[in-house]
Amino acid sequence: MRRLITLTTDFGTRDSYVAQMKGVLYAQGPGDLEVVDLTHEIAPQQVLEAALFVRAAVPRFPLGTIHVVVVDPGVGSAREALLCEHAGQFLLGPDNGVLSLALTGTFRALALRPERFVATELSATFHGRDLFAPAAARVARGALPAQLGDIIADIERIAWPGVEVRRSELRGQVLQVDSFGNLISNVSRADLAAWIPEREWAQLRVVVGSSAPLPIVRCYADAAPGSAVALFGSGGLLELAVTNGSAAATFGVAVGAELSVSVLSSPA
Amino acid sequence: MRRLITLTTDFGTRDSYVAQMKGVLYAQGPGDLEVVDLTHEIAPQQVLEAALFVRAAVPRFPLGTIHVVVVDPGVGSAREALLCEHAGQFLLGPDNGVLSLALTGTFRALALRPERFVATELSATFHGRDLFAPAAARVARGALPAQLGDIIADIERIAWPGVEVRRSELRGQVLQVDSFGNLISNVSRADLAAWIPEREWAQLRVVVGSSAPLPIVRCYADAAPGSAVALFGSGGLLELAVTNGSAAATFGVAVGAELSVSVLSSPA
Amino acid sequence: MRRLITLTTDFGTRDSYVAQMKGVLYAQGPGDLEVVDLTHEIAPQQVLEAALFVRAAVPRFPLGTIHVVVVDPGVGSAREALLCEHAGQFLLGPDNGVLSLALTGTFRALALRPERFVATELSATFHGRDLFAPAAARVARGALPAQLGDIIADIERIAWPGVEVRRSELRGQVLQVDSFGNLISNVSRADLAAWIPEREWAQLRVVVGSSAPLPIVRCYADAAPGSAVALFGSGGLLELAVTNGSAAATFGVAVGAELSVSVLSSPA
Repeated sequence: MRRLITLTTDFGTRDSYVAQMKGVLYAQGPGDLEVVDLTHEIAPQQVLEAALFVRAAVPRFPLGTIHVVVVDPGVGSAREALLCEHAGQFLLGPDNGVLSLALTGTFRALALRPERFVATELSATFHGRDLFAPAAARVARGALPAQLGDIIADIERIAWPGVEVRRSELRGQVLQVDSFGNLISNVSRADLAAWIPEREWAQLRVVVGSSAPLPIVRCYADAAPGSAVALFGSGGLLELAVTNGSAAATFGVAVGAELSVSVLSSPA
Repeated sequence: MRRLITLTTDFGTRDSYVAQMKGVLYAQGPGDLEVVDLTHEIAPQQVLEAALFVRAAVPRFPLGTIHVVVVDPGVGSAREALLCEHAGQFLLGPDNGVLSLALTGTFRALALRPERFVATELSATFHGRDLFAPAAARVARGALPAQLGDIIADIERIAWPGVEVRRSELRGQVLQVDSFGNLISNVSRADLAAWIPEREWAQLRVVVGSSAPLPIVRCYADAAPGSAVALFGSGGLLELAVTNGSAAATFGVAVGAELSVSVLSSPA
Repeated sequence: MRRLITLTTDFGTRDSYVAQMKGVLYAQGPGDLEVVDLTHEIAPQQVLEAALFVRAAVPRFPLGTIHVVVVDPGVGSAREALLCEHAGQFLLGPDNGVLSLALTGTFRALALRPERFVATELSATFHGRDLFAPAAARVARGALPAQLGDIIADIERIAWPGVEVRRSELRGQVLQVDSFGNLISNVSRADLAAWIPEREWAQLRVVVGSSAPLPIVRCYADAAPGSAVALFGSGGLLELAVTNGSAAATFGVAVGAELSVSVLSSPA
């Protein structure tokens, strides 16, 4: 069975940083290794954006996959470098919360001890190449996690922002703006169902920024081109979209904006 | 023999959509699968641009390659999801014309029937992950197309825009502007040869936008740096270029602009 | 042992050029081939930028790797197409200096003779697809270099710009601006140590553009967020950075800017 190592970084590919990491992985990994690019376009040093990305992508991969995540404003500081085992996969990255949203349920976390597996002195600025890639290559060759680091009790976490439920309104926020300009919120189907039974969702309207109150539809194609809709997206979260357009531009909204769901008043 | 699955999308890689598709492909595909990125930078929902891309790339790949193309403004609507067999390769994508320019000569088209191979309910918004990737993974594992869908009589097509031939002029149009700013037209060598014998092409001049009448040269290096030329590009189509510059910017021209080829008047 | 072919180009991935090259490589290469993207985001036709990229990336890859580098303003002109053997790896690219910074020490260079291995007439505009990819595929299948070209005595070189040492000052220049806005210079540790012993570096200050005199620190985390520092980066070269910001924007500096290192005056 082939070993997969995925890469998620904020390095872009214009510079040689990702290429250098791939070189180290192929040079130090097993002969049947395959390196898979997830993204190198995380906005520079945006840990939350990366954590949401990893949360969405990792569960889709097969058992045994090794995920390397390098979005690391604190490189060279005292923060630990993590190797986590979770649901039959491995995740490596800095202990700044970037892995935490993907680590649902039980997991095991180790702090990497580079002196056990890196011969040369560690670069102070490029742990992706000099620490995480060598560690991932060793996991791919079958090293036991305990050979690479020491178990630690807990890791840094990013809190998932909760929704606020009032009598006549559920308030959430925009977590992400995707490259189509869709606004992805923190409101899950479960959040909404706990507030209002699903059979009554046709009565709900969603407002964000300058938008009109929008009904919740099933898919983009249920709306006329250019019109705005709310729907549960592929990640199971309420999102707002303008079909064939950008909701972010249309409604003047960015990450962090407030979103309100309320019950349509009956006509008097 | 390794199985290749290529990906062509308008998703970009900043969001996790492509990463999720790769996860599904590796999780559901055979152990010797390799996923190959062709592009994720198709302009959002530009079906013609994607169709031209696929037409240029697919014929270069080996027999047995599986191509997944997701540029799909109508996702969730009634359009069919296609699995086509053509020249020993497989192509999957929405039935909106995006595959049609690559399907020259005879081919077989099936409409995917997800209820035969997708256990969970189909996401209304992300067929790339929930429909096309599982289908491609099954083709890669050796499923017969008939296990995945039903043969259909015809598919949606994008017409290849023809050239217009007049007595003293051949008129075409700009189909693509590439990232170097080169203007790629719909005029093939065959179009031009049917109008004027190749031995007389030295007499031809090409005009587009604000350009001067340009001769047709053999390669970029036949022109001085910064000068404008017309030549037959690597795809066999007449293109206009400014060496070490952008023809699109220099001539103020975009996709759809008219291009005219005429015979140089003899000096009086 | 798997065969790796890496790709470094200025093609971007919006157009189909890279996809066509991948198709040729997989169609003509061995069954265990893996194509690895290094970058397609070299600025159009910037040979020095590509040469620095290749110099940083190539040494990280395992023995037997085949590197294809296509940044080629002179495509179709009389420049040779190279196949070089160096330190157990292979490098292919135009003879315009793009490979030269990676070829340290001894190497062997051949000029490709396409008539020996390309059946059809060579495209005048797309040697990446029609010349370099077929040659790389043949190397991956075990062809001897002498079957593909003839040894040549020397290649075009890009000079590595040297530093200028004066009594009270060392002057270098900015070679690269990376995507974080870090300014990477031509000043190596060895350059600096030859001028001032390392134990005295705490007395040094670096100035570039509008910057204040900056001390040389060990890593980004040694500086407060938003502050500017100089440090030796992961490539062993002196670089200037603004933590959590862009040094290029802050100091109004681009590639080619002068950088000065001098000794801090003792307080009077």
